[in-house]
Amino acid sequence: MRRDALPENMPMPETPAPCRIAMVIFPRMTQLDLTGPFEVLARMPGAKVDLLWHHIEPVKDAQGLTFTPTATFSTYGTPDILFIPGGPGVLEAMQDEYLIAFVRSAGEGASLVTSVCTGSLVLGAAGLLKGKRATTHWGAIEQLALLGAIPTPERVVVDGNTVTGAGVTSGIDFGLAVVAKLHGEEKAREIQLQIEYDPHPPYDSGSVRSASPELVARLKRRSAGITEQRRAAAERIGRTLGAPGSAR
Amino acid sequence: MRRDALPENMPMPETPAPCRIAMVIFPRMTQLDLTGPFEVLARMPGAKVDLLWHHIEPVKDAQGLTFTPTATFSTYGTPDILFIPGGPGVLEAMQDEYLIAFVRSAGEGASLVTSVCTGSLVLGAAGLLKGKRATTHWGAIEQLALLGAIPTPERVVVDGNTVTGAGVTSGIDFGLAVVAKLHGEEKAREIQLQIEYDPHPPYDSGSVRSASPELVARLKRRSAGITEQRRAAAERIGRTLGAPGSAR
Repeated sequence: MRRDALPENMPMPETPAPCRIAMVIFPRMTQLDLTGPFEVLARMPGAKVDLLWHHIEPVKDAQGLTFTPTATFSTYGTPDILFIPGGPGVLEAMQDEYLIAFVRSAGEGASLVTSVCTGSLVLGAAGLLKGKRATTHWGAIEQLALLGAIPTPERVVVDGNTVTGAGVTSGIDFGLAVVAKLHGEEKAREIQLQIEYDPHPPYDSGSVRSASPELVARLKRRSAGITEQRRAAAERIGRTLGAPGSAR
Repeated sequence: MRRDALPENMPMPETPAPCRIAMVIFPRMTQLDLTGPFEVLARMPGAKVDLLWHHIEPVKDAQGLTFTPTATFSTYGTPDILFIPGGPGVLEAMQDEYLIAFVRSAGEGASLVTSVCTGSLVLGAAGLLKGKRATTHWGAIEQLALLGAIPTPERVVVDGNTVTGAGVTSGIDFGLAVVAKLHGEEKAREIQLQIEYDPHPPYDSGSVRSASPELVARLKRRSAGITEQRRAAAERIGRTLGAPGSAR
């Protein structure tokens, strides 16, 4: 899959090497965790992106947007890139034995193991993050340790063949980092210009470091229920993995 | 639909006023033009987002991602917010008489008329941008004049009840601007933190002002065919609208 950047004067081969990208989907995922990276990764030479679920039947994201799988866990085989989005549905996905078995097997064979947002907790639940530096949504960052990972609160974290992105919109930064890793900086710059990625957030409120403490506290209170459920699940799964962070 | 920001100590009503958001979809749209704004707008209080197409049948974006409409042009009625994404398929959408008739009618009744990327050319083709400041993808900015708009190469442009975003990823900035307009700055800051919108582009290559002239020229060459087709269509449609920019 990997193709190093070609010298300027060498023509691109007409048919680039195929790159099979498996994006796992599940009910109540956060769709932008998936669609941001999709927009970037699908523009790589040779990219063949599939959305994977148990069956070929529509899956609704947390806000009700419908996605249609193009492949199933049982028939897809091994991807070049494994990708997992996050969202409220991660709580169920972490505990879905068949989904986790696919993620483990696909992740062991893939060239790159990747996620955005709380998707990293699914990678962790499959035992793929033991001893690895990884990131996730700010509201879940401590929970990575329960699954044996080293929580690293950065926007995009690369550790060997593992690439994880922080919350939701980090998927665009994540995607460009993957493109640069596989195809070089010039291809990443090209895709960045195609998608006019010149962000101008209207406020400085996008991270726990910049938002007001009151706002951070309010959002933490509002998601306290699901955060606690996910923590308990991560702790239980971490114990079965023998993850040191889960020890009492 | 519009609810001004409530005083800090006033409880939010339990059932927020509904806000019907009509997002037009079409084959070969660029899905992130749609999914970025969807993620932000669907989090507004009372948001009821529909994807609209001629029929309830799957529509594939330019990279093959499938979307399922939830409503049709003939039965939806008038939205509170009309939204149009862009993408290569804009060339056909601009010339789709039934789609354009819906956009014109919905836009005349909507509280907000909006687009991201080349979606503004669809608004323009429906006669909704005459004399209005508007933006679009950098590769199409001059073509807005052919449809009677005032090309304004900024990330998000607000002119009265018209809000347009530039290329693809601008949809997130656009979405937050719409939230701020309808629900105030604090709600926009809250959604910004939920989606961890603290962008860190790996390169400074996201606009024609920052990318290298060689890269801009290469991308312009590569899209010259579709750019010329779209220009010719805009010029022809502009003449039927009596748009001054289309005069020879």
